[in-house]
Amino acid sequence: MPKYAQRMYDMEDTAIIIRNLFNAMSDAEMISFGGGAPATEGLPVDIVREICNEVLTYEKRGTEALQYGSVLGVKDLREAVVNFLLKPKGIQASIDEILIVNGGLETMNLLCQVYINPGDVILVESPTFVHCVEIFKMFQAKCIAVDCDEHGLIMKDLEEKIQKYHPKFVYVIPTFQNPTGKTLPVERRKKLAELGTQYDVIILEDDPYQELRYSGEAVSPIKYFDKSGHTVYANSFSKIFSPGSRLGFVYASKEIIMKLFDAKTATNSHTSTLAQVICAEFFHGGYFSQHLKKICEIHRQRRDVMIKCIDQYFPTNTKRVFPDGGLFTWVELPNNINTTDLLKEANENKVHYIAGESFFVEANGKGKNCMRISFGNVTPEKIEIGMKRLGSLIQSKI
Amino acid sequence: MPKYAQRMYDMEDTAIIIRNLFNAMSDAEMISFGGGAPATEGLPVDIVREICNEVLTYEKRGTEALQYGSVLGVKDLREAVVNFLLKPKGIQASIDEILIVNGGLETMNLLCQVYINPGDVILVESPTFVHCVEIFKMFQAKCIAVDCDEHGLIMKDLEEKIQKYHPKFVYVIPTFQNPTGKTLPVERRKKLAELGTQYDVIILEDDPYQELRYSGEAVSPIKYFDKSGHTVYANSFSKIFSPGSRLGFVYASKEIIMKLFDAKTATNSHTSTLAQVICAEFFHGGYFSQHLKKICEIHRQRRDVMIKCIDQYFPTNTKRVFPDGGLFTWVELPNNINTTDLLKEANENKVHYIAGESFFVEANGKGKNCMRISFGNVTPEKIEIGMKRLGSLIQSKI
Repeated sequence: MPKYAQRMYDMEDTAIIIRNLFNAMSDAEMISFGGGAPATEGLPVDIVREICNEVLTYEKRGTEALQYGSVLGVKDLREAVVNFLLKPKGIQASIDEILIVNGGLETMNLLCQVYINPGDVILVESPTFVHCVEIFKMFQAKCIAVDCDEHGLIMKDLEEKIQKYHPKFVYVIPTFQNPTGKTLPVERRKKLAELGTQYDVIILEDDPYQELRYSGEAVSPIKYFDKSGHTVYANSFSKIFSPGSRLGFVYASKEIIMKLFDAKTATNSHTSTLAQVICAEFFHGGYFSQHLKKICEIHRQRRDVMIKCIDQYFPTNTKRVFPDGGLFTWVELPNNINTTDLLKEANENKVHYIAGESFFVEANGKGKNCMRISFGNVTPEKIEIGMKRLGSLIQSKI
Repeated sequence: MPKYAQRMYDMEDTAIIIRNLFNAMSDAEMISFGGGAPATEGLPVDIVREICNEVLTYEKRGTEALQYGSVLGVKDLREAVVNFLLKPKGIQASIDEILIVNGGLETMNLLCQVYINPGDVILVESPTFVHCVEIFKMFQAKCIAVDCDEHGLIMKDLEEKIQKYHPKFVYVIPTFQNPTGKTLPVERRKKLAELGTQYDVIILEDDPYQELRYSGEAVSPIKYFDKSGHTVYANSFSKIFSPGSRLGFVYASKEIIMKLFDAKTATNSHTSTLAQVICAEFFHGGYFSQHLKKICEIHRQRRDVMIKCIDQYFPTNTKRVFPDGGLFTWVELPNNINTTDLLKEANENKVHYIAGESFFVEANGKGKNCMRISFGNVTPEKIEIGMKRLGSLIQSKI
């Protein structure tokens, strides 16, 4: 058989992590704190069925939903983004600055298509979202980690590394960060937007969790502070509507959107009109705000149970993040615990998490005593059972 | 702003064609023989609504449809591919050899991710589908045209060019070809599969129209003759179910599917489960065969009207293909007609087609007197009106 392209070899180490992640999802017995899914119990099944019944007719939106659509996306879904998701944050966007994509991750892929030549540098948080690193590596980018403290990216280290490496992008998940659950403070966000302008670097702001806030005050996106068009705002409908619909959006300058348009036509033409029409009706039909309250309540309860379980079952010198929202917490265990080694035994006990090491592009053993724990799609009862198991296992290694 | 990646410059000439194509689609006054959409009147709107009502409940498939799913795709949709689309063609596939993608085109993108380094050669038909050329150029492949006669690819020229250029892929649309509507005879299909094996080249068989046959005998896919796993079979649900659902599939060896899995996770994780569940029920609920009969009848009538109109309104020395199926015919006008120049005037008269030149990667003026005419999504009445207008315009230039 013909040889694979070079990019497949360059991404291989990260691809293995992603493959294992998906494989663990298929074991129904497993209590999985691994994946980043929201609560199945909170999915808007009845709402979606009602919407289909109402609008999938020849008279209303049936043929629109089933026929080819526009590359940028269904118009009233882009309007929903502008009015329901951006305007409440003080952002005045136009629908020409919005592109609907096939799930939040696709934005990272398309933006790499537009900007990344092999060898280009992308600065990432330490730790960062491993699935996006897979995308960056497929484009043969060089990922360099920027130091983080308890609030996220450290601006001094970031600016030095921008000067040193001349990156194309700074990739950042500022709100309820993946994997740590941390939220970047407003002054650093403002500074990030300014650094993008000053050094002509794209700030790629990945913000899929920000609507899922359970405590504390909302913080403006980095994009809010962007005056030059250097910040690109990527978001997803997976957490607030449905992951299975595979819908996300990107908000960027018209110039960037026009290039993303080309990359999108050369990827898959456009995103499912069927899913888009249903999602647009979810917003314009007035379902969103009530639904958001409901799912925040479900996830808040799970977070609280999870935090209680960590404090109860894990070793006393464990450090953990209390996330004000989102789906994850990050745990730092005593130094002698290796979470990568531990995972095999945990899986035998039918508990899954993601080992901390996976999230560090440094690959120097950093995070080897850490783990990302997702509470989004595990019921409180199972959180209790799974964390007790995991706690016993960890205690037995000390 | 940062400089774009090199691939965006390499694809620019083709991207312009694709942009214009999508823009022409948005003019509601236009009678468009341009795009490749199937009949809006044939879309299964009532069936889809019924399915949603039936299965989008908490008890049945509601949470499956709205939650994250598997990378390869929903299991019973892959089973539908195996049993409803491949088995009737004498092909015994396993579901591990099937990956569900976001529309037929995405397979070309993912296969390029897996195999194409910049500068790699892809052999294509002359003429070929311009939208796939956009994808190949985004991956910085060098597209080289292989000569075709009235039946399609000429095997002698193909083998010589394989020997000369050592291509990674031969890209071919063997059935009701895009843009010409021609069908490759069975002996050439067999030979193509053999050449793939003999020279270690991927035969990329793009076959989205093959179920839409209105006359003549069915011909086995190239993949049917593949003994070594060198043929990759790309297909789409756009023409037989719904373009707006954005569903397609690829059937290939397990080894290739596993690499496409990695490329898929680094593109958009997986295809919409919502759309997949509905499409799976469309097959397993027994709707497919009746629906296929219905849409074949609609398109057969449109083809017949279109052929009659060409013979009636176009100059007597016009050559045209009589397609046994699919959505296109190909017209060769007298030599002095330049269809690229003519398009502007046609658009002023609210008629659209795609100029022949666009489909030739040779870019040496080949096809300048040709046009691709789609009859799929224009009613017989509008075909009559549009073709009369277009015929008058052409007659005025002779």
